[in-house]
Formats: sequence, C-alpha cells, structure tokens
Amino acid sequence: MSEKKQIYKPKHISGFPEWLPETRMVEQQWFDHIRKVFESYGFCNIETPSVEEIDVVTAKGEVDKEIYVLERLQADPDEDKEARLALHFDQTVPLARYVAQHFNELTFPFKRYQMQRVWRGDRPQAGRFREFYQADIDVIGVDGLPLHFDAEMPAVMWEILSSLPGMENENIQMRISNRKILMGLLDECDLDYDKHPDVLRTVDKIEKIGESAVREILSDELDMSGVDIDSILSLVSCKASPNEINSVISQHIVGLNNSLLQEGIDELLFVMNQLSHLPEGAVVADLSIVRGLDYYTGTVYETVFVDDPGYGSICSGGRYDDLASNYIAKHLPGVGISIGFSRLFSRLEAQGKLPVGPKSPADIMMVLPNEEQRALAAETARTLRERGFNVEMYHAPQKLKKQLAYAEKKGIPYVWFPPFDAEGEHEVKCMKTHEQAEANPQKWTPDEQ
Amino acid sequence: MSEKKQIYKPKHISGFPEWLPETRMVEQQWFDHIRKVFESYGFCNIETPSVEEIDVVTAKGEVDKEIYVLERLQADPDEDKEARLALHFDQTVPLARYVAQHFNELTFPFKRYQMQRVWRGDRPQAGRFREFYQADIDVIGVDGLPLHFDAEMPAVMWEILSSLPGMENENIQMRISNRKILMGLLDECDLDYDKHPDVLRTVDKIEKIGESAVREILSDELDMSGVDIDSILSLVSCKASPNEINSVISQHIVGLNNSLLQEGIDELLFVMNQLSHLPEGAVVADLSIVRGLDYYTGTVYETVFVDDPGYGSICSGGRYDDLASNYIAKHLPGVGISIGFSRLFSRLEAQGKLPVGPKSPADIMMVLPNEEQRALAAETARTLRERGFNVEMYHAPQKLKKQLAYAEKKGIPYVWFPPFDAEGEHEVKCMKTHEQAEANPQKWTPDEQ
Repeated sequence: MSEKKQIYKPKHISGFPEWLPETRMVEQQWFDHIRKVFESYGFCNIETPSVEEIDVVTAKGEVDKEIYVLERLQADPDEDKEARLALHFDQTVPLARYVAQHFNELTFPFKRYQMQRVWRGDRPQAGRFREFYQADIDVIGVDGLPLHFDAEMPAVMWEILSSLPGMENENIQMRISNRKILMGLLDECDLDYDKHPDVLRTVDKIEKIGESAVREILSDELDMSGVDIDSILSLVSCKASPNEINSVISQHIVGLNNSLLQEGIDELLFVMNQLSHLPEGAVVADLSIVRGLDYYTGTVYETVFVDDPGYGSICSGGRYDDLASNYIAKHLPGVGISIGFSRLFSRLEAQGKLPVGPKSPADIMMVLPNEEQRALAAETARTLRERGFNVEMYHAPQKLKKQLAYAEKKGIPYVWFPPFDAEGEHEVKCMKTHEQAEANPQKWTPDEQ
Repeated sequence: MSEKKQIYKPKHISGFPEWLPETRMVEQQWFDHIRKVFESYGFCNIETPSVEEIDVVTAKGEVDKEIYVLERLQADPDEDKEARLALHFDQTVPLARYVAQHFNELTFPFKRYQMQRVWRGDRPQAGRFREFYQADIDVIGVDGLPLHFDAEMPAVMWEILSSLPGMENENIQMRISNRKILMGLLDECDLDYDKHPDVLRTVDKIEKIGESAVREILSDELDMSGVDIDSILSLVSCKASPNEINSVISQHIVGLNNSLLQEGIDELLFVMNQLSHLPEGAVVADLSIVRGLDYYTGTVYETVFVDDPGYGSICSGGRYDDLASNYIAKHLPGVGISIGFSRLFSRLEAQGKLPVGPKSPADIMMVLPNEEQRALAAETARTLRERGFNVEMYHAPQKLKKQLAYAEKKGIPYVWFPPFDAEGEHEVKCMKTHEQAEANPQKWTPDEQ
C-alpha cells in the first residue's frame, strides 16, 4: 500500500437507510413476524423485479416526478433500443402487471403479500426516504370480491402491528370507513359530479388542517352551500367502536335515502362486525377517513399512533374497483393494505424503542483451547449445530481472556470449553450469570443452568 | 370501463427473473435454509442500500460498462447537484464501504452474510441476468485474519449446497487452491513480474479452452520457455482429496525452494485438513483453480457440477489482502465466498428439479358453511392460527363443492368443516387420503389422520 494513497471517506446517502448488524437483526425479526402472520391467513408471497418498463410505472401519470430511471453508464448509442426501465415506486403497479401477465396461472381470489424495497426519486431532504420497504397484502378477485376480505385486512394488520418487537406498548388505532357513504351523501348535495374528488381530498385533510379550514375550502373554492357543508362535516365527525357504529351513524343520516350511501353503511357495518373480537379501541369506524387517492371505491383504512396522530398513517389501504384494466380485459376488483415498514421501523429506532440485542446470532462461542484440541473443538461445534444451536468457533488458540472478551463484546450468551487435554471434561459458562458447569454436547440445553 | 380502451400487454423483461407463487415459495425455502446455516456459524446479517455513490461503485474501474446509474425522470436542472447514484453490481464493494464507514461500531473479526439483489447493466440477451440475488459470506480482520476462516468458508457452503431443496441429488464438488503456490512458482520462472497476472488469467481458462490452448498462449503471447510452461502445467494438474494432497503436491515441487510457494502449500494443507470430515469427493485441492480476479492473494474456491463442469462455478471466492484501502487507513484482510443464487435457482427451475408444491402457504382451509356460522368459523380459524397452523378462511358461504375445489386448486392439504348448525361437530378432511373425521380445534394435529 502506498502511504500517500488518496482516502475517500464514505458517507451516508440521505434517504437510503442502513443499519448496524444488531439493528438489522431486529429488522429481520420484523420481517419474520410479518411473514408469519401473513402466511397464517393464507397469503402467498411474490416478488417482482425492481424495475418495470417506464410505460408501466407511469401509466397512472401521478408521480412522474418521483421516479428513478435506469441508464447504463456506458451505453452504446448504436445498440438496439429497448424500453426504458424504471424502479417501481410502490408494489401495486407491479402487482397489476404481474396479475395481468400471469393471469392464467394464478388462482383467484388471489391472496398475495409482498415485502420489497420501493424507490422515490425525491431530492435529498431530512426524513424523506428514497429507498424503503413496504409490506403489502392484497386480494384480487375476478368480476367480484367478497366483503370478507375487507374485514380480513385490518384483522391481519392489527395482529402484526400490535406484536412487532418494540411496538407492544404503542397505542395504535386502525380507523376504517367506506367511501360510498360520503360519495352517496355528495350525490344528494348541490354539487357537480366532477368536484366530488376535490371534496374527498379536502375532507381527507381534516385531521391536518382542522375543521374550519376544511369548511372554508368547501365553501370558497368548491362553492358548496352551508347546509351541504354541515351535513358533510356532521357525517365525517362520526367515530364509533364496532358495537356502537350502527346507532351512531343512524343519527346522522336521518331523512337521507341514497342507495350508495346505504350500501356503504351496510358494508362498513359488516366489516366492523367481523372485527368485534379485537381489543377495545383497536379499530374504530371513523367517517373522516377518505384516503386522498382516487382509485379507492369502498372500504378505506388508516392506522395512527393515538398519541401522535399528526405523524400520519403507518398502515393504510382500501378497496379498489379494477386492478389492471390497462393490461387485461378482465374486471379485477381488489382490496389491499400496506405497512410503511421502513418509516415505522426508523421511527422506533430513533426513539430507542427497538429491542436491540447482541451483535451476533450465535448462541454459543466455542473456545479453541490450543492447536491440539482444534479438531475436537470443531467436532463439538458441529454436534451442537446439528442440535439446532448457532455456534461460532473461536478462530485462533489465543489467551482465554481474549476469547471470552470477544464473546462478551458480541453478546454471545454461552461460552463452551472443550476439554483442554485428554483427561478434561466439556464445560459451559453462562455469560450472564457467570456460572460454569460440566456439560455434554449431545444433551446440554440452556435450561440446565 | 370503456370497451375501446387501449390494452398494453405486459411482457417479461429479459434478465429480470420473476416466479409464480409456488416457485417463489421454494425460493423462500432456499433463503431460509441459507440464512439458517450462515447464522449457525455465527455470521450476522447486514443489508446495504441498493445504490452507492458512483465513485464508490467504479473505484476499481473494471466493470464500468455493466453499471446502472439512476436518473430522476423529471430532475430539475437548477437543483443542487449531488453525487450520482449507481446500483451495486456485487456485494463486496458495498461491504468495503460499510466496513470503512461503520468501522468503530463493528467487532472484528467481522463475520457477515448478505443476500441481496445486485444489478448488471448488460444488453438484454439470453441467459444473462441483469438483476439477481447473491448469497455472500465474508470475514474481515484488522491487520490479520486467521486461516481458520479460510477453512470455514467451504464447510459452510458445502453444508448449504448439499442440502438446498432440489439440490440433494446433484453431484457437486468444491475445488480449492491457494494462489501463493502458483505465484511462488512464477517467481522461479524466467518471466517479468508484471506478466504474472496474465499467466494467472490464462491458467484460469484451462477447463474452458484446454491445456494445449493454454500452452500456446503462454508460449506465443507471454514468451515463456517450454521448461517453465511444463512446470506450471505440471503443478496445476495436481488434484487430490484432503488426505492425499500432501503427497501429491510433494511429487510436483521436487527441487523447488520458494518461501511463497511453501507458504501456499502449508495454507492449503491446513485448509484441506480442516475439511476432512466432509464426505468423500465433496472438496478437492485443485491447483488449476486460480480465479481470474486480481485481488485474490491466497486461498481460492470454485464449485462445479461434476457432470457439467462447463457450466462454470456456482459458488466461488477467496482470500484478499485488503478490503477497503480506498476508504480507510487500516489494513483489513478478508476471505469471502459467494453463491450465485439466482443463476443456480434458475438452472434447477428450468431442469424441473425444484420441489415445487402448493400455491398457498395454508395448512388448512376453513369452510364457511353458511352466514349464520361465520362467527364460529372465524373463531375456529383464530384458534387454529394461535396453535401455529396457517389457516385460510373461505370467503363466502358458497356451495361446498366449490369451496373444496378451491382448496384442491391451491394445494391446501386439510379442509376444516365447522359445525353446520348448533348440533353439529367439527370435522377435518385430509385432501390427500380423502379421509374425514371429527376433530377438536384445540387439540387436532395432522398426525391424527
């Protein structure tokens, strides 16, 4: 090595999270936990490529600004042009393409989960991720999809969110509504149909900007009458537990007779009814939830920290009418919900709430007493591995003190001493209690100590 | 939906593999298996972002042509310029940056595994992946790294490769050498030092192009004498099992007295000696293995299908002298080995050798007999989930025949019938044996039937 070598000091790239091994281990536990619950409800996994053709990614036209496109560093200008490739910014667009492409090989209703990275080509700025994980479930039907699935989504997500390592003491709440209710009410208002999306987007902001600001926009910008605004704001103020929701809504729709509104109420009641087994406060019907995105057509979900609702939703989704009409001449209604995995994980990490443990997955460190006992130490390690333990063999016959310090530093809970000579016995030391005792590699369990 | 809507038929993007759910399930089993074995040897996991700054990715200057760079679709030309970002093409470059960046927070020797996608910006062409998984382990030391780890790498990988689902009957062999042996021999040849890498790269091709072609290049292009060529080709013809290697090599180095060569032989003997517990034929010392890459300095590994050596190596690596000298003024020797995961998985998939099973992870499908029994069916499903079973609840009270057909199609092995009325009993049907029997949700196990 030249002494004068230029050293390039590596630095963190803003928006691309990266963890130390001990934190990554908790992140793996999160993925394992989420996968286990998803699969326990029969969701299968798929993974799609990181890229789609650019026409697929931009088909909905909303998010052009945030898309990363791939360029080959030294592309040959003479070579055949193929479609440009872009990194996907969510998992719904790739799902639509996947379902259309593999339609004949899938079984419907198609229940799938997906836990992949997605990318947003944002400018680097504090708190905005440019690469992050999402954990999604969706169910896709052909021509129809039973409401059963609308009720299953929050049950799955509640089970996950309430027991993720580090989340056990967080006070979270899932808030559910059905857009048909508000859309039905809007039908009864004196308002052009093409303004309905604007009203929904405005009402969606109520928690952020407050009721009076919403009232002002509906009145000044959308020209709604005071009576119509009152009835909307009255309806969206409805919040109730699964058991109360029926009577609460009834009070607010006296005199209204709109079939879409009634359909929405019936659907919401069905969903809430299926969730009555959850702990009190876990889910509420909350008619202020509309979700800004245009494509939701029925049930909608949000999930908040009750003590910090301004943080925004950590798990959201809803029912949509047609997943993949761009790609296939089939009517494919669906319902889906997504955990903003990296955003949630990073929050808990920053708050010091993750149960961050050892730097190593090893249960046992095998001492290497001396060169003569190397084969025996290796064989003992193999025996213990076969029995299901994670065993790191120490790498050189160094002083015992040094070997023990290494186990300590990596947080390995047990240290195994193979016999130091032909006369000796195996012993195990518990690094927590400092107790040390004879042990048999074929039989030892951590409970012994 | 408009009837005249333009339908864009989605197609596969060449080089970006994607699987159906039933194949993806096997891929997950592969990842689980690899992770389990890596962790059983005490390797911790890290994940790095998909991107690095372009200076980091291109630091070694070799692979410019294959790098994908990110561009924001609608970047604002006035905004602050930040460093360009590129997708990583391997996991070693990110590891070097990671170790340098987090040096003070890691414990050394640092044993890490990494299983991520990497990207190569190749032209689309048959059989070349542009996005694929690698499964790597590396151990990084500070100022030195015991040979123990050189011996641990092939033990770990043999354990994995010989028991991946679908690989059990494949005849594979790990081939190990030490570059110091050949480098020591070259010191004794009449040859400029700066031609050594060319000789190594030429010898590396011996399995592909044959001995006589290698001889021609060494003679015609590198001006080596017949005597020198003979001694090189004699040495690289050495192949032996762990127990025979000592005597085999001795015969080929009679009269040579070079300290680097002797060091290489001693290291190789140590490594082979640690692997003598593996089945016969699992590993061989093979001095024709040199690996083309310049940065290997000692032990080198390749793994081949014995019946199809021309397919190339499925698991390779070696010892290197300094991981991260571009980024940090520390001497960080390492040893690593990598499975070309996607390439191997795709091969077995194409050969129909993967144990592809059901389309669903569910163990049990819960029949929904009628609307009245919905709550009981849901509760039964929850009980079984709490007991560790994956249970998909059927989504609508449709005809039994239809519900059973769905379970059949998804490959769900058991169908659970909750009582159809207040008098009834729970029953379970095994879809394989068609046996049906009463069952208690609190106690039932698949073994009962």
